[in-house]
Amino acid sequence: MKIIVDAMGGDNAPEEIVKGALEAVREENIEVILAGRGEDILRSIEKMGLKELPRGVEIVNASEVIAMDEDPLNAVRNKKDSSLTVALNLLRDGRGDALVSAGSTGAIVSGATFVVKRVRGIRRAALAPLIPNTAEGFILIDCGAYAECKPEYLLQFAFMGSYYAEDMLKIESPRIGLLNNGTEPSKGTPLQLEAYKLLEKAGEDGDINFVGNVEARGAMLDECDVLVCDGFSGNVFLKSAEGMASFILTELAKIFTKNIATLISGLIVKKQLRKMRARLDSDKIGGTMLLGISKPVIKAHGSSNATAIANAIRAAVTATEADTAARLQMNIDRMKIDDADDKADENT
Amino acid sequence: MKIIVDAMGGDNAPEEIVKGALEAVREENIEVILAGRGEDILRSIEKMGLKELPRGVEIVNASEVIAMDEDPLNAVRNKKDSSLTVALNLLRDGRGDALVSAGSTGAIVSGATFVVKRVRGIRRAALAPLIPNTAEGFILIDCGAYAECKPEYLLQFAFMGSYYAEDMLKIESPRIGLLNNGTEPSKGTPLQLEAYKLLEKAGEDGDINFVGNVEARGAMLDECDVLVCDGFSGNVFLKSAEGMASFILTELAKIFTKNIATLISGLIVKKQLRKMRARLDSDKIGGTMLLGISKPVIKAHGSSNATAIANAIRAAVTATEADTAARLQMNIDRMKIDDADDKADENT
Repeated sequence: MKIIVDAMGGDNAPEEIVKGALEAVREENIEVILAGRGEDILRSIEKMGLKELPRGVEIVNASEVIAMDEDPLNAVRNKKDSSLTVALNLLRDGRGDALVSAGSTGAIVSGATFVVKRVRGIRRAALAPLIPNTAEGFILIDCGAYAECKPEYLLQFAFMGSYYAEDMLKIESPRIGLLNNGTEPSKGTPLQLEAYKLLEKAGEDGDINFVGNVEARGAMLDECDVLVCDGFSGNVFLKSAEGMASFILTELAKIFTKNIATLISGLIVKKQLRKMRARLDSDKIGGTMLLGISKPVIKAHGSSNATAIANAIRAAVTATEADTAARLQMNIDRMKIDDADDKADENT
Repeated sequence: MKIIVDAMGGDNAPEEIVKGALEAVREENIEVILAGRGEDILRSIEKMGLKELPRGVEIVNASEVIAMDEDPLNAVRNKKDSSLTVALNLLRDGRGDALVSAGSTGAIVSGATFVVKRVRGIRRAALAPLIPNTAEGFILIDCGAYAECKPEYLLQFAFMGSYYAEDMLKIESPRIGLLNNGTEPSKGTPLQLEAYKLLEKAGEDGDINFVGNVEARGAMLDECDVLVCDGFSGNVFLKSAEGMASFILTELAKIFTKNIATLISGLIVKKQLRKMRARLDSDKIGGTMLLGISKPVIKAHGSSNATAIANAIRAAVTATEADTAARLQMNIDRMKIDDADDKADENT
């Protein structure tokens, strides 16, 4: 298996990206293609004390880099020699099985849609991170690929999330919840009201295991395996949870450094606290799957270090084996949206 | 000053509500009216070991109770002798200065709008809790009074939040942020894009101190004093943060009860942890202000105990003194929306 890595994407590119990729090659039975500025990549490899390119590592040169604040679609279209665009072209052309990038989310979403294309019949790709909760975590879909949504997109997200949870998390008949501001079917804006009906019908048809509306708090307390929402709400959900976690961890650090007694107290539970912290940082662990694209694309966290990149590459391997895209294609008739408005924006 | 208390609202009604009200009367220089089933209230007072109604405490009988799952507006309209409806009528008729209820949020919002009425020119009332963050906290407005919003409502929320932060939190020129999925002005759905323009203009006119788009995470890290959003997003924000806090606190409890060493560690920091936990439960401390209503209405947490109710009554006292409603009325021309659609739903 060969994983394509955008070597120039992310805050710690290219050094940590290259280091992570080499770690994955060393530990897993895979090859990687590093797309990016050849000399920068080689310098990173030299810095690691290596004299030559290790076996299983290939470099494909790309002279440009897409910055985090560039207009996503324009960047991909205009910077044809950017590391991301080159990587996407390699994926489209079958030079590798999956792609990992820690670059700009917007550019990855737009680029993957524009270059690699969505599964035929899928109207919107969606970011589907695993969010830690009191159980094994749940899939949040969409967490911000597109801010705006139609009820039909939410139905497709439910299917995508359901297949993904089965394939990747090995959950049988995953519980699908609709993010809402209350559990009664009458809750929400017209988007949720309409989506509820579509999801309910899919549940009755036996296509998904719809458990109804779920509040944000409920998802954290294991009321569903997949939480379906528009990208705006998903972003608010994720960032609010992250912000609260960050706030509490800061407060805890203050408590434990208050005096000698509390320092000792902190030392006793240090290992467990570190474990908890790692669990909360799950987005940094495995990267986030971009579902609905015809081939596996994994968005690694912008601040990814080598370990995070190696883990994202492992996730890409699992995603390639799971091949959720093929499953989506096979079941597309159940998920198809027949909407004239949407025909126009096929693959935009 | 006289505060009207819905004695039958909330999970712990009437006992804890009555107890909290009596505590407030004892400690503050105020009177209360308890609206609810007379005999139940008297029994609660007896249980506290009191032989007669304390000075400053009055009971107004109301035979019915609105359940948490009833349709809000119908409940208020049809159950004319419910504790909440009776309390709202007392407030409208000037029998008291402010109202505290731990009952159903929907019923309080609908009831206050229907009976007490909004400030003339305000299109939607909004729930404005103080959310704890790395600094002194920030006002989230709206956190769920109405799921759906127009850009103009968000502008009014910004004004209301700004005055409230000045009056209640004593913050000069409060920093107003618009909740969005990124900080660039181009971010969000059409709602945020339009609202951004309105808020920017109000900022340029010197009416509010608009600091731009703020991400959910940023608000937790003190990037604004008032975070403006539609009720749906506000609800997701609040419940996600609550869920994450609850998750982490549960994990912490597990860590500290793991073995004797960690138990000791936990004992050392017990007091500080309790303080942190209390800070995170801020909604249980002071209740949530319903802004935009012509008189002060405070929604106490559904699970409020006596202390929480006493604190909500104290918040009602402060709100009465601050009289944000008068300030809204005085400045209504700056905030007025001239929209034919909206004329129809004045006070619905």
